Amino acid sequence: VLTVPHWIDLSGVFFFAMSGALAAYDKSIYRDFFGITFIAFITAIGGGTIRDIMLGIHPLAWIGDISYLLAIGAGVIIAVIARRQLLKLTATMLLFDAVGIGLYTILGTQKSLAADVNPLAAIILGMFSAVFGGVIRDTLLNDLPLIFRKEIYATACLAGGSLFVLLRHYAIDADIAAFAGIALVIAVRVIAVYKSWSLPKMGD
Amino acid sequence: VLTVPHWIDLSGVFFFAMSGALAAYDKSIYRDFFGITFIAFITAIGGGTIRDIMLGIHPLAWIGDISYLLAIGAGVIIAVIARRQLLKLTATMLLFDAVGIGLYTILGTQKSLAADVNPLAAIILGMFSAVFGGVIRDTLLNDLPLIFRKEIYATACLAGGSLFVLLRHYAIDADIAAFAGIALVIAVRVIAVYKSWSLPKMGD
Amino acid sequence: VLTVPHWIDLSGVFFFAMSGALAAYDKSIYRDFFGITFIAFITAIGGGTIRDIMLGIHPLAWIGDISYLLAIGAGVIIAVIARRQLLKLTATMLLFDAVGIGLYTILGTQKSLAADVNPLAAIILGMFSAVFGGVIRDTLLNDLPLIFRKEIYATACLAGGSLFVLLRHYAIDADIAAFAGIALVIAVRVIAVYKSWSLPKMGD
Repeated sequence: VLTVPHWIDLSGVFFFAMSGALAAYDKSIYRDFFGITFIAFITAIGGGTIRDIMLGIHPLAWIGDISYLLAIGAGVIIAVIARRQLLKLTATMLLFDAVGIGLYTILGTQKSLAADVNPLAAIILGMFSAVFGGVIRDTLLNDLPLIFRKEIYATACLAGGSLFVLLRHYAIDADIAAFAGIALVIAVRVIAVYKSWSLPKMGD
Repeated sequence: VLTVPHWIDLSGVFFFAMSGALAAYDKSIYRDFFGITFIAFITAIGGGTIRDIMLGIHPLAWIGDISYLLAIGAGVIIAVIARRQLLKLTATMLLFDAVGIGLYTILGTQKSLAADVNPLAAIILGMFSAVFGGVIRDTLLNDLPLIFRKEIYATACLAGGSLFVLLRHYAIDADIAAFAGIALVIAVRVIAVYKSWSLPKMGD
Repeated sequence: VLTVPHWIDLSGVFFFAMSGALAAYDKSIYRDFFGITFIAFITAIGGGTIRDIMLGIHPLAWIGDISYLLAIGAGVIIAVIARRQLLKLTATMLLFDAVGIGLYTILGTQKSLAADVNPLAAIILGMFSAVFGGVIRDTLLNDLPLIFRKEIYATACLAGGSLFVLLRHYAIDADIAAFAGIALVIAVRVIAVYKSWSLPKMGD
């Protein structure tokens, strides 16, 4: 079984909280400290919470271990202090987000397999882990969820999760399978943005 | 205890997935394969997922049994291939949807009673099973949920669920009670559309 | 352990249902009996349901004990009958709502502590108990959630929950700690409205 170092998991939470806090700045009505923190919190823990509730796993990570809440707090504070600098680093932010969804996808897929879920459902739950925080955030903001708007996003998660499941099925070492899956998510997502890839639309 | 044949349950999932996929066509922004499949998936499994999470039942049906995901896949593919034909069959689609909510209502009510839930809560959970997939779908699409807009919809589910609970209370055979409940949901819903029935609005 | 008398808990449900039903009147499209009841139901049980699902506590209060549904029914009926009188009593309604969120905050925080949750997560879950019914209600209505719009609201819950946790930490009697926490939520909220307090906005 893959044991992801705790600091990698916390880094994912930290980066998602930072990106959530920065997103809240786009909507001026959310610019008090509570609004920013609430959006950051939902973005950071939404996906994993939905996944664990669907799997019936308790306690939820952020409820059982206070370090998740501290990581969110750190992400919010750094985002608020360094927002001018961070918002200029669009390429860096894209990479942070891609790393975040890559980590969450594989963590979620792996956690689902460990709970004896069938591989197809595990891939879907891995994708949910990565994207659902953003879906709830966008729904609360009355925006069309990002996963429906952007260049290939959730599909990158499905691709990485599928690769991970496939490699594990052929008994490839768990760490290698995880790194390959995470790398595929990041690569597809980053290339999709730079090449403006999107899935083909269907006609009438 | 009523044991609904598995294929009936899967048919409900299949028809809801088809209607979800067709609904996604109305919003041109959702017209890539991921968007359509995601909306179809949420529509098909949303209600049952909310019900089982509220009841604390695990694993969720679609997580424990891969045939639900296959039924959704089949619904999406047929909806995409035959969309021009299907969208013309408005009367057929209405009937499919009415059959779907009828089945889900009675399945949900029965599952709740089996979990020792009081009859009133069981009727509410049966209605949730039938309508919540659509509520989440409409909320994600930034639409006013259908259950608030349409001719009598959720109320048909409450009527059918109540009849089922009542017949079971008087020890009527489970299969007969189920068929009566399903038939009442379908009848109320279909007649409501043809007669433009809606609940009376209240004044100021 | 604090044991809140059952009638206080039910009063909270009753007042939230009443305020939900009255809110539904603002949107004329929701003015049939089903729409009003559905919104009242979501407002009254949403926060506690989310909290208990996150904590993995079953059965949910309104599923295990029919008196919650009866309290909601009573709240809806009284709101519908007395709506003209009630809508004039804005000061009274504000106080009812403040009492409601005060009670739910401390009940939720206490229930979380009893489930061995760390104090910070318990305060967050207490706040969720109080505000999430309203968040779901506003999201279904396609409104910007109230907690992001209004004078200090969720922050009052966080303050009251923190005081409760602090007093309990120093082994203050549970009833005294609860009354102090509830009083702080009500005081902060009522003063915030009369003085138009809001959190400072952050600049660019």
